Amino acid sequence: MRVAVYRKEHFNAAHRLHNPNWTDDKNSEIFGKCNNPSFHGHNYELIVKVTGERDPETGYVCDMKIIKDIVREHVVDKFDHKNLNLDVEEFKNLNPTAENIAVVIYDLLRPEIDAKLDLKITLYETERNFVEYPA
Amino acid sequence: MRVAVYRKEHFNAAHRLHNPNWTDDKNSEIFGKCNNPSFHGHNYELIVKVTGERDPETGYVCDMKIIKDIVREHVVDKFDHKNLNLDVEEFKNLNPTAENIAVVIYDLLRPEIDAKLDLKITLYETERNFVEYPA
Amino acid sequence: MRVAVYRKEHFNAAHRLHNPNWTDDKNSEIFGKCNNPSFHGHNYELIVKVTGERDPETGYVCDMKIIKDIVREHVVDKFDHKNLNLDVEEFKNLNPTAENIAVVIYDLLRPEIDAKLDLKITLYETERNFVEYPA
Amino acid sequence: MRVAVYRKEHFNAAHRLHNPNWTDDKNSEIFGKCNNPSFHGHNYELIVKVTGERDPETGYVCDMKIIKDIVREHVVDKFDHKNLNLDVEEFKNLNPTAENIAVVIYDLLRPEIDAKLDLKITLYETERNFVEYPA
Amino acid sequence: MRVAVYRKEHFNAAHRLHNPNWTDDKNSEIFGKCNNPSFHGHNYELIVKVTGERDPETGYVCDMKIIKDIVREHVVDKFDHKNLNLDVEEFKNLNPTAENIAVVIYDLLRPEIDAKLDLKITLYETERNFVEYPA
Amino acid sequence: MRVAVYRKEHFNAAHRLHNPNWTDDKNSEIFGKCNNPSFHGHNYELIVKVTGERDPETGYVCDMKIIKDIVREHVVDKFDHKNLNLDVEEFKNLNPTAENIAVVIYDLLRPEIDAKLDLKITLYETERNFVEYPA
Repeated sequence: MRVAVYRKEHFNAAHRLHNPNWTDDKNSEIFGKCNNPSFHGHNYELIVKVTGERDPETGYVCDMKIIKDIVREHVVDKFDHKNLNLDVEEFKNLNPTAENIAVVIYDLLRPEIDAKLDLKITLYETERNFVEYPA
Repeated sequence: MRVAVYRKEHFNAAHRLHNPNWTDDKNSEIFGKCNNPSFHGHNYELIVKVTGERDPETGYVCDMKIIKDIVREHVVDKFDHKNLNLDVEEFKNLNPTAENIAVVIYDLLRPEIDAKLDLKITLYETERNFVEYPA
Repeated sequence: MRVAVYRKEHFNAAHRLHNPNWTDDKNSEIFGKCNNPSFHGHNYELIVKVTGERDPETGYVCDMKIIKDIVREHVVDKFDHKNLNLDVEEFKNLNPTAENIAVVIYDLLRPEIDAKLDLKITLYETERNFVEYPA
Repeated sequence: MRVAVYRKEHFNAAHRLHNPNWTDDKNSEIFGKCNNPSFHGHNYELIVKVTGERDPETGYVCDMKIIKDIVREHVVDKFDHKNLNLDVEEFKNLNPTAENIAVVIYDLLRPEIDAKLDLKITLYETERNFVEYPA
Repeated sequence: MRVAVYRKEHFNAAHRLHNPNWTDDKNSEIFGKCNNPSFHGHNYELIVKVTGERDPETGYVCDMKIIKDIVREHVVDKFDHKNLNLDVEEFKNLNPTAENIAVVIYDLLRPEIDAKLDLKITLYETERNFVEYPA
Repeated sequence: MRVAVYRKEHFNAAHRLHNPNWTDDKNSEIFGKCNNPSFHGHNYELIVKVTGERDPETGYVCDMKIIKDIVREHVVDKFDHKNLNLDVEEFKNLNPTAENIAVVIYDLLRPEIDAKLDLKITLYETERNFVEYPA
């Protein structure tokens, strides 16, 4: 039977929710205070789950130090202390909702992790609002 | 692939565990100090999980402000600062174990949320005892 | 210089806030939903702080296993899975606000702990509301 | 002896650290990634501590529902989902470090709370960095 | 539909990661500071998940006091305040990675719990590194 | 008025409690399972509190990145993934109780931090047992 291993990291970022195809009134109605044009921000907590067989020589599913380095290089260095809307290429044309951020993180990490291993992302925007992908 | 979104709420309530078809001795033997006739209580933490496709216009699976309002209207206002055994209709003939409370919350919320979206309830009675439905 | 040691315990209890010298309307106006006649409840988290000099032979300010046993005997066994208003002698004529519960716990523990050691109580009613005595 | 009561609230905001009297190089050297011109953000956790005597009629130091309303009106509504540098008058000429935010919150709340009661502010910028005022 | 119930316990233990078939250099290269020959240690948090149907008489999936006693007898008493490599039979020839500890705990608990109930183990080595079995 | 800033770090270590001047029986009687000769371990959480005036140019009491580097160099690198009794000079003749570890950490950090600033150490051995120095 397979084992899942989890690694928790964090990054702090600014963002706003906005659909450029909508009027300001509709953006304000749908996204409320999350639409504030001068941005707000969060301490995002990110949990990366990797599932697979244990290697009989190490007793590891995978070396979590390597997973930690991959997450820092491909996600944390890119998102931490940034404005997601202005500074991060992936959100130039994509609304940075928690759902979309989780999918972007999955797409950034998937090519970096052995295809035999399953990958799942949990992202906490606050301790009361969080998302998981794939569900 | 689908995304899950989670919203955490809380309510504080009194309850006791009791089966009216049993003798006092059997109730005391099975439910122990949870059977105290004058009740005890908990800070319940409730996590509502909703799973579905992202709306391409909003980037949301569903608007969590609407989920929050639904949970407050149908669960929190009904249970918070109440005695579950005495004040809440659903437990007039149902023992308010964490398992049963989670199923009652699911049944209260299921009709209020779009049928295309899956729903799951996690309920913490304490940080050491919690339940999930459906499992 | 002195060192403080802290021990965290917990108990689950029912209570209501009520002043018997007031009308029902005034009780309801002042205590709101905390005045519900059929009670509500909390998971109380209790932190006991003991301050003194380190014993050079043990490196302890005091043996925390002994503090833990004192707290369980004099507080937890008395309050856990109880109705503070109905089951606990100390609240027969005292409103069980978090402030009053903390002072009662201090008064129960103070005679059990060496007079050379200072004592302070922190009591969490919820993770958002808590009190400290003496301040 | 006096009792302290604590109330925890939260707000999410964007900010950047910057001294307009310095060159860009010096700002970057001193404030590092916190100086990012397009901002970053945090989930701020705020703990308000109020210390005084218990009222013998209520058993309260003060009504925490009133403290909660004061904090929401004078702090949370002003800071939540805002850009501290751009949207909040108090930081037009003041660098929004955690230290300065805590002092500003104290100055906003002090006139709203009975002068007989002491006030202290704890502000978490992240769970690893936090400040307290007055110390 | 079935309900899952969770119980959280903890134990504090020393361990080191080491493969006796490898050279010291290879052990050091693969396991890094976790290979320290004089050991290091953790506060392990253990979550036991049991899934099944609710008993209509109790409203329980299973009595969590019984689960708690089983976990304490078969896991906590065996691992708590121990050196996993030196004191625990199961790790005489098995590297005590979090993955392997979770599998050993599952194998210790599985025979003690009714075969109609499903069992899953989550083990936190730190709040940033944790594992789940079966995944 | 002065402001306090706090920085939280962590390290994982093995230890045992033992007084070499006592018999094995007395050690076992006083220190219980903490006296296990093959050690046990903890995830220690360390909070460093620094108190002083705000610098008017930065708005900082002190640069927390510098505090973080000092703590990592003088404490974390020395204690993390180590056996406190065997690997750390300061505990060669000092019992590594939480109280003594906190005092050692204070003595390691005090010379590294500006004498105008006050210093206080909080050390969590577990989330239920922690100490503070100076108290």
